[in-house]
Amino acid sequence: MTARRAPARGRGPRPGAPARGRGQRGTTPIRHDVASRARALGGEQVEGRHAVRELLLAGTRRTREVIMASDLDPAPIIDDIIDLADENKVRIREVGRNKFESMARTDAPQGILALAAPLREHELDELVTPDARGNPPFLLLLDGVTDPGNLGALLRTAECAGVTGVILPRHRAAHVTPTVTKSAAGAIEHLRMATVPGLAGALTTLSARNVWTVGLDTAASTSLFDLTLADSAVALVLGAEGAGLSKLVRQRCDVLVSIPLRGRLNSLNVSVAGALACFEVTRRRV
Amino acid sequence: MTARRAPARGRGPRPGAPARGRGQRGTTPIRHDVASRARALGGEQVEGRHAVRELLLAGTRRTREVIMASDLDPAPIIDDIIDLADENKVRIREVGRNKFESMARTDAPQGILALAAPLREHELDELVTPDARGNPPFLLLLDGVTDPGNLGALLRTAECAGVTGVILPRHRAAHVTPTVTKSAAGAIEHLRMATVPGLAGALTTLSARNVWTVGLDTAASTSLFDLTLADSAVALVLGAEGAGLSKLVRQRCDVLVSIPLRGRLNSLNVSVAGALACFEVTRRRV
Repeated sequence: MTARRAPARGRGPRPGAPARGRGQRGTTPIRHDVASRARALGGEQVEGRHAVRELLLAGTRRTREVIMASDLDPAPIIDDIIDLADENKVRIREVGRNKFESMARTDAPQGILALAAPLREHELDELVTPDARGNPPFLLLLDGVTDPGNLGALLRTAECAGVTGVILPRHRAAHVTPTVTKSAAGAIEHLRMATVPGLAGALTTLSARNVWTVGLDTAASTSLFDLTLADSAVALVLGAEGAGLSKLVRQRCDVLVSIPLRGRLNSLNVSVAGALACFEVTRRRV
Repeated sequence: MTARRAPARGRGPRPGAPARGRGQRGTTPIRHDVASRARALGGEQVEGRHAVRELLLAGTRRTREVIMASDLDPAPIIDDIIDLADENKVRIREVGRNKFESMARTDAPQGILALAAPLREHELDELVTPDARGNPPFLLLLDGVTDPGNLGALLRTAECAGVTGVILPRHRAAHVTPTVTKSAAGAIEHLRMATVPGLAGALTTLSARNVWTVGLDTAASTSLFDLTLADSAVALVLGAEGAGLSKLVRQRCDVLVSIPLRGRLNSLNVSVAGALACFEVTRRRV
């Protein structure tokens, strides 16, 4: 456990800032476009204690309201959430357990959810440049991961591994649902994310920008652990649970690697395979 | 995807084998002891398609019955399950959807569950010797992992990484519930598992048997990736979600390591941390 970070003071809505309400949405084509793309990514309903605390702590988007079940037992993380909401002038609404359960969309929201502005969507071009801390691009492309628990788990691990951007296919409903927000445990507040019409096209763009693309494929003869990775820009590509990478995506990767298994089962969960791949890049960059 | 393994023919109940029914249980003190310890580990209700197929394929314990919802769409894995059940003379019972849902204990049993003999529990002493394939002990100790989804995920990953034995604390209800069987995806059929009265005591035993014990601790200054691991016997120790290792367990480990994080979140999911640790051992043994 690292020391608790200081809250990102002053990044919430400032009292003097102009209201960005319903009246202004869509008044110019550019704003309209940004708004509609943001809605495509989602993430407005954040559930779970860690996810809500991180939403308030990061302050990278506006939180409209925090909703708490009225029967919660005291816990330090709840005190944190109340303090952070106060600091950021975010309204806290206490509701009865039945009302809370009717609002929650996940199985175990832990009595706390928040309603926030949609996640900001990035352009693919932005993700190909070094991030705010000067790290070379370390991207994660998800080719059809459909289970929201797996998607959230992958985002959490990716953030911890230092991934600088995540690329999702727009048409495969790669939507950040409440379940994704819960299992991502706050990672979505820090990760830059882009959606693209198709991953195959994105891979062509990445190759043209000198990003080395590495696909995980259980049939590949090269081991993940034999990759020779330097400090170059790299993109990891993960396929869907079961089906793996689609044919075109597989063909467009610069290299395909597999994870050597030593047991009798023949596959890892996609979120575990993704974790091993992400940390293999991290480990070699240390 | 590796080639599908041939079913373990002849490992199911043979027609000529003596019946091992109610009448024989507990007729000697030794059998009684084995039976009660087996009940402690559980695992009798197996849910999910992969878990049920692996149960039948492995043939390491008796399957009493396979229960299928009557409204399943055709799928190759269901054909596999039917073929394997026929080969092993296991009864398949088709039931209506409502009846099926009332029998299932997991959220998404995929329309298939099986009832089987309890998992065989091993003695700690057995796990300290090389396994059937001559691999030196590569053990995983779980100190209070309570979420059944995490426990199952860890077992699946451990099997894939070549872990030779798993050690669980008996008093912390380390029971293999239907949810564990589902997320383990068949790993429980292959992994040797032992329960112990306390993990601290087990660590003392392991040290005395020259097994090197490595605890994962987020506060440790040594990186997991800087471990110097040879082909010696090793045991990884993982703590509970949130709380981490208990104090006594932490003190008894030979070395504590942490996973270096490069993002802003301060922790990984325990099943991801465990996966990275297991495959770090595997990678260095290749």
